[in-house]
Amino acid sequence: MTARLIDGTAVARKVREDVGRGVEELVAGGGVAPGLATVLIGDDPASEVYVRNKRRLSVQAGMQDLHRHLPGDVDQATAAALVDELAADPAVSGILLQLPTPEHLDSDALIARIPPDKDVDGLTTSNAGLLAQGRPGLRPCTPAGVMTLLEEYDVPLSGAEAVVVGRSVLVGKPMAQLLLAQNATVTICHSRTRDLAEVCRRADVLVVAAGIPGIVGADAVKPGATVIDVGIHRGENGLRGDVEFDEVAEVAGAITPVPGGVGPMTIAMLLANTLTAARAQQGMPENEAG
Amino acid sequence: MTARLIDGTAVARKVREDVGRGVEELVAGGGVAPGLATVLIGDDPASEVYVRNKRRLSVQAGMQDLHRHLPGDVDQATAAALVDELAADPAVSGILLQLPTPEHLDSDALIARIPPDKDVDGLTTSNAGLLAQGRPGLRPCTPAGVMTLLEEYDVPLSGAEAVVVGRSVLVGKPMAQLLLAQNATVTICHSRTRDLAEVCRRADVLVVAAGIPGIVGADAVKPGATVIDVGIHRGENGLRGDVEFDEVAEVAGAITPVPGGVGPMTIAMLLANTLTAARAQQGMPENEAG
Repeated sequence: MTARLIDGTAVARKVREDVGRGVEELVAGGGVAPGLATVLIGDDPASEVYVRNKRRLSVQAGMQDLHRHLPGDVDQATAAALVDELAADPAVSGILLQLPTPEHLDSDALIARIPPDKDVDGLTTSNAGLLAQGRPGLRPCTPAGVMTLLEEYDVPLSGAEAVVVGRSVLVGKPMAQLLLAQNATVTICHSRTRDLAEVCRRADVLVVAAGIPGIVGADAVKPGATVIDVGIHRGENGLRGDVEFDEVAEVAGAITPVPGGVGPMTIAMLLANTLTAARAQQGMPENEAG
Repeated sequence: MTARLIDGTAVARKVREDVGRGVEELVAGGGVAPGLATVLIGDDPASEVYVRNKRRLSVQAGMQDLHRHLPGDVDQATAAALVDELAADPAVSGILLQLPTPEHLDSDALIARIPPDKDVDGLTTSNAGLLAQGRPGLRPCTPAGVMTLLEEYDVPLSGAEAVVVGRSVLVGKPMAQLLLAQNATVTICHSRTRDLAEVCRRADVLVVAAGIPGIVGADAVKPGATVIDVGIHRGENGLRGDVEFDEVAEVAGAITPVPGGVGPMTIAMLLANTLTAARAQQGMPENEAG
């Protein structure tokens, strides 16, 4: 392969270490360690793994683990009451509702109860509006993690052509906003795009968040482009992404692997958001670590 | 010229007539006529003209004119108190703060006091978030007006390449979101875009909201494209837009004139939003006129 490998595991470790130092400074400055309330409803094994990792790494960064678990058959009112309780609790800096919730629950309605300043996943309508209007707010973790990777690898964005594949509320749409805020010329593609490969070939920076294994191959990549693969799928030969890694790595200038690319960044940015939230709630100034 | 002329004056009239019928139906159904509270601060002559037109056309559509005028030297607290009073008044369906406000005032802070369901200009962070997340809400009037023009002229959007020039919070950004919601492949350009003409030439639908007279010429237009000019500038020979009309009209398939294109749509959509707001506040179902 000729592309430079973008090492998300290493960058995520650096971000978590920076957050750990930020937590120490917050406490040393008379503040309180940030508290992360992960909320898991039910016993989905994949969700349990995700939540366990978030808790472990938040503790490693010096945060308080304020995890809450509800049974899978909980009713909407009880789940809502838990979110309200966490919203009112000053020890809780951030609330993370692990998705998906069981089908009988309205997860949107639960998210809407999270106060914007504790919305460390950046999922509330309020934080989406702040991002759209270019105002400070908590950004969704995955696209924020992509931005940190691009920054760490000095990928030029101002004036660059950026193409985002996928328009989800969680990733594609906020990704486009964040790239635009860094002065890229941004195109957003999706299932109705007529000639996906042709549009992708324009990209200096290509972010693929389609959720379809291998949708982007070498024919969709301009030589030298930076390719960021947000997809993650479990296949017969282990994990893979939305990008045909082997062939694209021969064309691209830089590429994220799966696993070890965007994945580790999501939790790292969750911790960064939790520190940012705690600082703001405690009236402490933002600094570089956040 | 070879391009079809998109007649915004005629479409705006049709929208206003539809709104007028919607108001009649609302009242006939036991509801109350919508009330539009235009708020003018100071005596800027251009703003006075805009507000006068909004009031005149809202009355023509059967709405209550709840105009308020504050002196140009009013302090922030007094202006905020007026917005709060209108927010609490059940006769007020929509609040329109005419911009720009005098420089000593924080207009963003005033807009933030408008309840989202009375934000008929679609400017609040809440409505920006609803748009970004693809949820129902009040949309900014100018981009909503562009969408209505495209719909009235049966311009295909699904799978089409749409290019938006300009990334303002009022026009460019919500415009991109609305085109994306109609399944266009959307590119957003701005002052840092490397080769604006090259990017614009990809567009089947080109919306120009740069605020720079004549920034888009014939070299930036694909033959047959639909060109929507949001710009309006007062020059030596009368009003003109962001598009070099005469030369582009020889290349485009359809084009909006300035004046008489997007301009009249903005007030029409304001009235449509006010009716939508009134219906929602009165618990009346949405119908086609809104």
